[in-house]
Amino acid sequence: MTDTHTATTDGDLDVFALASRLSGGHVADNVEILNQLEPQDAAAVLVLLPVDISIEILDKPELNFGPEIVVALPRQTATILLAGMSADMAADIVQQLDEPARTELMQALDEPTRTTIEGLLAYPENTAGAMMTTEFVTVPATWTAERTLQHIRQVERTRETVYAIYVLDAFTRRLVGAVSLRRLISGEPSARIAELARSPITTSPLTDREEVARLISRHDMLAVPVVDKAGHVLGIVTVDDIIDAIIEENTEDAQKFGGMAATDQPYLQIGLPGMIRKRGGWLCVLFLGELLTASAMQHFEGELEKAIVLTLFIPLIMSSGGNSGSQATSLLIRALALREVKLGDWWRVALLELPTGLILGAMLGAIGLVRVVAWQKFGIYDYGEHWMLIGLTVAAALIGVVVFGSVAGSMLPFMLQRAGFDPASASAPLVATLVDVTGLMIYFSVALLILSGTLL
Amino acid sequence: MTDTHTATTDGDLDVFALASRLSGGHVADNVEILNQLEPQDAAAVLVLLPVDISIEILDKPELNFGPEIVVALPRQTATILLAGMSADMAADIVQQLDEPARTELMQALDEPTRTTIEGLLAYPENTAGAMMTTEFVTVPATWTAERTLQHIRQVERTRETVYAIYVLDAFTRRLVGAVSLRRLISGEPSARIAELARSPITTSPLTDREEVARLISRHDMLAVPVVDKAGHVLGIVTVDDIIDAIIEENTEDAQKFGGMAATDQPYLQIGLPGMIRKRGGWLCVLFLGELLTASAMQHFEGELEKAIVLTLFIPLIMSSGGNSGSQATSLLIRALALREVKLGDWWRVALLELPTGLILGAMLGAIGLVRVVAWQKFGIYDYGEHWMLIGLTVAAALIGVVVFGSVAGSMLPFMLQRAGFDPASASAPLVATLVDVTGLMIYFSVALLILSGTLL
Repeated sequence: MTDTHTATTDGDLDVFALASRLSGGHVADNVEILNQLEPQDAAAVLVLLPVDISIEILDKPELNFGPEIVVALPRQTATILLAGMSADMAADIVQQLDEPARTELMQALDEPTRTTIEGLLAYPENTAGAMMTTEFVTVPATWTAERTLQHIRQVERTRETVYAIYVLDAFTRRLVGAVSLRRLISGEPSARIAELARSPITTSPLTDREEVARLISRHDMLAVPVVDKAGHVLGIVTVDDIIDAIIEENTEDAQKFGGMAATDQPYLQIGLPGMIRKRGGWLCVLFLGELLTASAMQHFEGELEKAIVLTLFIPLIMSSGGNSGSQATSLLIRALALREVKLGDWWRVALLELPTGLILGAMLGAIGLVRVVAWQKFGIYDYGEHWMLIGLTVAAALIGVVVFGSVAGSMLPFMLQRAGFDPASASAPLVATLVDVTGLMIYFSVALLILSGTLL
Repeated sequence: MTDTHTATTDGDLDVFALASRLSGGHVADNVEILNQLEPQDAAAVLVLLPVDISIEILDKPELNFGPEIVVALPRQTATILLAGMSADMAADIVQQLDEPARTELMQALDEPTRTTIEGLLAYPENTAGAMMTTEFVTVPATWTAERTLQHIRQVERTRETVYAIYVLDAFTRRLVGAVSLRRLISGEPSARIAELARSPITTSPLTDREEVARLISRHDMLAVPVVDKAGHVLGIVTVDDIIDAIIEENTEDAQKFGGMAATDQPYLQIGLPGMIRKRGGWLCVLFLGELLTASAMQHFEGELEKAIVLTLFIPLIMSSGGNSGSQATSLLIRALALREVKLGDWWRVALLELPTGLILGAMLGAIGLVRVVAWQKFGIYDYGEHWMLIGLTVAAALIGVVVFGSVAGSMLPFMLQRAGFDPASASAPLVATLVDVTGLMIYFSVALLILSGTLL
């Protein structure tokens, strides 16, 4: 691929040589090659390719500049390719076009393609309706297996998948069953298709893509039909779209857990302004939250002045709370996403996190205590005459902070879900911020309790 | 499902009623019902079900206590079901059995099933070899489309998928092509299968499951053949196994990013000892790292005593570094996993993170400065006569810490990958710990620079 890249940057790209190379390649490789080019150059290559190969390339969600390439194509080529693409991908591209190109192109499309794309664009992003394709196979319930197979042979080229065949009531055209191609070819040719069909598992157009992914993975389906309230099939969501959706969803969740707004752009394409937009907002919000730690510290200023030795352990104690909270939050976000726990299970979780936090806190507290004792005994640092009390304060505060971190961290995703947000909006930095202020309070309260009358 | 659950805890489960209910249900629902039962009760129900329905249930990876159920079954039923299951799932179950049950059951199996399972068990976990199934369709290159279709009709019941047909050289039995069922039924019946076939995309048995997932998703395949070095097909990995693998992989990555050891058990089944094991190790390691903050603070004890006002901002500054680091790390882990950036791109990333960190740090620094000025001016808190210098120290330290956090956080996944580890082993708490100690150093160094001669 390096040679292609060099050719572009040199400015004299041999589009004919590239087109001939692409027409013999795997579509995934072709997409990677075109991703290295400027959109105008990619369009120049596409024009030279056979129409079916161009359509195959534009149909891949991995193609980076689909809309830019379509705009750079001659209008007539663009309409032919859009009409030949799977409807969901064509709608995706049209959606990303700027005006006036969008309206112009839509008007140039043939009537059925335009109506289909307009229909798909009407559904909110990340729903089954927005993901579905309208190219699927339906047959009336009265047909035989043989006639169905004959029909599939005829329409195969224009359908995204033929592995699931949807059986409609001959009069109402409502979905009454689904037959896999596998079952169709192994069945008796004279059998009525309705007899081979199973009762279909369906979804609705407004179902979230995460829910659709769960359904497909649960039932090991290759496609799920999207039906309206009356039971008419609007489209199907196929397993390859679902894999893309799962990967995208996981990227978004990982970024959100890292404490930033999700982005579906590849890293190197986000650019500096995009980085600031995606990261600056949350960073400022978290910073405003963390400003409370300064207020908390100001509140305990008197204690700090009397026992400056206490400040030495502030970072240690705060971070331990944040770390245990981050563990609990990451566990619960996934458990809720995979439906391993439900909203009503919050008390079970709390009952498990409480002893977990106690034991983990005791472990850290023991290490902390050993450290204070060791440093004192070996003369590495002098914590003053009350060094044992200081060690105990640190240990007790660690237990308190880790318990609070574990419980708060595990409850945060529940609270978000309860409030109607995505539990995956909880992030490690958010938990750390929540736990930091409380951690300081716990530390100074414990110190007041243990050191009152001696140091404080 | 509540009724089932109540019935179990009551102790008088009507296995006959349940079996009759299950024999009419969707397999995914059946699995959920059996997951509510004790393994012995589930086994008692399975015995009563038709063999094909039991096999379908045991074949689902969502079944929680597969090995326990198999052990609780009569030996003869167990061997029949294992022989009927898809080979990859049967191997999964055998692998999880304890001795002596494992050896006993293996010896009771028929020869071909035992050999197949032993072969699959020889591959390391999470590789294509361990995931693949051995039930797939192969035909000699000399056959016609019609004969192939006839063959599929005969063997369909015993194959996990028939949607991809692998064409072998008639003599060497090496893989020479792959035909989709779709292409097969739409082709001329008299056409030679070798003419319909495309050159196959393959993987090797030791390929990591993440890599296999990438391959399947890249080429929108329903299955990928696993071949040995000589080109013989050992098995196939199907798209439904890949979806399960992607979900499992993402769960593991999310847990690792949260700062704990990955677990594939559902949350409520981990139990207290498991929680301590999975979380305690990393928490202690991170704690030991954080102990360095105490040493750093001790190092600057003189400065702390002179200017106790500086301690007020320690949590704020440290957490800002951790937060910006967490953002950068989560971005880069996903970018590396999705191959959006490669190891050699580290300098591009550093060149983008540097100005990003500068701008984000300047934003936070400005807020921090405004806060100090506002509190001073409105008389909320008195930072002393050098309040402006303190504000500037905080602002400058924030810029330094956020730049360091962004750059260090983005480089950590590269360093892990370079050292041969999974970049996803980088966690938010790990980054925070790395940044905390340096953050303190930056803060105190900046303070010495700005406040030397006044406060310090």
